[in-house]
Amino acid sequence: MRNNEGILIVVSGFSGAGKGTLMKRLVEEYEGYALSISATTRPPRPGEEDGREYFFLSREQFEKRIAEHALIEHAEYCGNYYGTPRDYVEKKLSEGRDVILEIEIQGALKIKEQYPDALLLFVSTPDAAELRRRLSGRGTETEEVIQKRLCRAAREAEGIEIYDYIVINDDLETCVKELHGIIAAAHHAPGRNGEFIKKMRRELEEN
Amino acid sequence: MRNNEGILIVVSGFSGAGKGTLMKRLVEEYEGYALSISATTRPPRPGEEDGREYFFLSREQFEKRIAEHALIEHAEYCGNYYGTPRDYVEKKLSEGRDVILEIEIQGALKIKEQYPDALLLFVSTPDAAELRRRLSGRGTETEEVIQKRLCRAAREAEGIEIYDYIVINDDLETCVKELHGIIAAAHHAPGRNGEFIKKMRRELEEN
Repeated sequence: MRNNEGILIVVSGFSGAGKGTLMKRLVEEYEGYALSISATTRPPRPGEEDGREYFFLSREQFEKRIAEHALIEHAEYCGNYYGTPRDYVEKKLSEGRDVILEIEIQGALKIKEQYPDALLLFVSTPDAAELRRRLSGRGTETEEVIQKRLCRAAREAEGIEIYDYIVINDDLETCVKELHGIIAAAHHAPGRNGEFIKKMRRELEEN
Repeated sequence: MRNNEGILIVVSGFSGAGKGTLMKRLVEEYEGYALSISATTRPPRPGEEDGREYFFLSREQFEKRIAEHALIEHAEYCGNYYGTPRDYVEKKLSEGRDVILEIEIQGALKIKEQYPDALLLFVSTPDAAELRRRLSGRGTETEEVIQKRLCRAAREAEGIEIYDYIVINDDLETCVKELHGIIAAAHHAPGRNGEFIKKMRRELEEN
């Protein structure tokens, strides 16, 4: 049972929980998904392509988009803007794709205000020790950075209840299946099947 | 991710949509489910066993249960009482089983009042023509009875929005999988993972 309109899916979770890999696998293993592409004012890194990793904009262009409400949400990190272009997301939704947005909790709340039907998913590790292991395991972070990330995770954990579902990324394959299952289930909500319900009612009345 | 407490699942749907077969397959193919057993004052038919098909009660016993609020819901059909014993359902839920109740919309509403976390599922055929075919296909019903059932279905269709999910029983195996997927997804709601969230918060704070 698929509707014409896709579902807007917001994925948040602790840094180190493996969101990026999960999203990549989800899109590779199942059909019907589209990853949202962010706009940013940070310069492209070698190998990055405009419209693939990011939409690369000048500061002026970005601020014009903010003023035009052309971004669903935006934030500034380390002197660069990052944001979600509304037209790209809405185009994919209208094509029937489930659009995935990886975003932190403040952004998730802004999305939910504008798209009350958005599905909010939170990815966690099985426990804090595993989160620490994955952050350390990258080998590229100092203890101070790891501590900061864990403190941030503690703050993020305060907001978990605003999410519709929580998944634990213990085994990657299991977690991808669970995510897909949760999204597949959401397609069965009556609010997403208005046309079918209307058709069924009409047919039964005419009987 | 399984919690200690099971989910109360209410399944409604048009007569002829195949609810009974679906529930049977769900319980056979997956672990963790329990079918609720109704109480009734109708006499047992040959081969029926007390506590398997129904709990068979006298009218006096049944009315005592009503007075004691020992039934979650009850109704009278053709001079016989039918109802859902609270103790059986709550025992299975506390054992961590997802308890399935097959019940019509009025009963479903009564359940939702008392168990706001109950998951309400509605089973439909792909269209009204298929519903008619299945009702006729039994070969045991007169045209008048079929007409009555279709009229009843038209009334039932008015209430679909109170359900959390709608599934279309076109292919039986697909539908069983979808039902199981919807229930598996429900286990990921933050409200059903309070203990995990509390544990994660405590660990992150202690870090």
